[in-house]
Amino acid sequence: MLIREATREDWAAIWPFFHGIVAAGETFTYPTDLGEDEARDWWLLAPPHRTVVAVDGTGTVLGTAKMNRNHLGNGGHIAGASYMVDPACSGRGVGRALCAYSLEWARTAGYRAMQFNAVVETNTYAVKLYESLGFTVLGTLPEGFRHPAHGYVGLHIMHRAL
Amino acid sequence: MLIREATREDWAAIWPFFHGIVAAGETFTYPTDLGEDEARDWWLLAPPHRTVVAVDGTGTVLGTAKMNRNHLGNGGHIAGASYMVDPACSGRGVGRALCAYSLEWARTAGYRAMQFNAVVETNTYAVKLYESLGFTVLGTLPEGFRHPAHGYVGLHIMHRAL
Repeated sequence: MLIREATREDWAAIWPFFHGIVAAGETFTYPTDLGEDEARDWWLLAPPHRTVVAVDGTGTVLGTAKMNRNHLGNGGHIAGASYMVDPACSGRGVGRALCAYSLEWARTAGYRAMQFNAVVETNTYAVKLYESLGFTVLGTLPEGFRHPAHGYVGLHIMHRAL
Repeated sequence: MLIREATREDWAAIWPFFHGIVAAGETFTYPTDLGEDEARDWWLLAPPHRTVVAVDGTGTVLGTAKMNRNHLGNGGHIAGASYMVDPACSGRGVGRALCAYSLEWARTAGYRAMQFNAVVETNTYAVKLYESLGFTVLGTLPEGFRHPAHGYVGLHIMHRAL
């Protein structure tokens, strides 16, 4: 697996699984009907922020991550990141590799911590992954997310010092 | 004191204290050198979001608040808000009135809770005010804010159900 800069040409490979994940409405606080043009603008970030893809030996896109500043001004030393992995490629360590990469990016870029603003508490796969990489739950917004199957569930705010 | 919709004509009265508060860099995660045009675009929100001013009997602007959605998609029932009070008018209950107003706005608009993403922990005046209006600290981002006098201090995430 290789992690490299995402290009606009990668979008055609990202959008199918991106769209499926967002439309399912179980893990992201994005509009479930988010259109492709807006989605592309949200996801493919310009420098100094970054968007990457994880690809296999054949060049197939397995997943993607975006990395950005999470607070401005005197909170500007706090980074944020988001990840999407093609469900067809789950279980291959793609999410872990993308998360570890984003932590290294943030550290190198001079950020002092990474914060996730809204991790759906029923997304236990992601929560456990983040915890295994050193994140802790700072707090949980009660009933912050209306899950299509579970109803109102919490949104974790997660943090890892760098 | 009256709280009413802010207009673009109010901006000339807002900007001097807005600029002073932001440039001081003690309470907001805004760039301390935020320019006036960008500040106006950030603060004067279009519907369905709202920006209001608190004025006295002579029409003088005492403070201002903006109210907005804090999460999108299936987190779209969580509101957010920000407040600025002219320091020359402190101690007159302006901040309390603006905060109470925003809670009522959010409740009426159908939001289920109000969340503040970044309350500087050394801004004890604001923290106590919010707590007196029913907010609790969900968690604190350690060293999330570089205070010009106190160094790295925490950023509270605060919440109130509606």
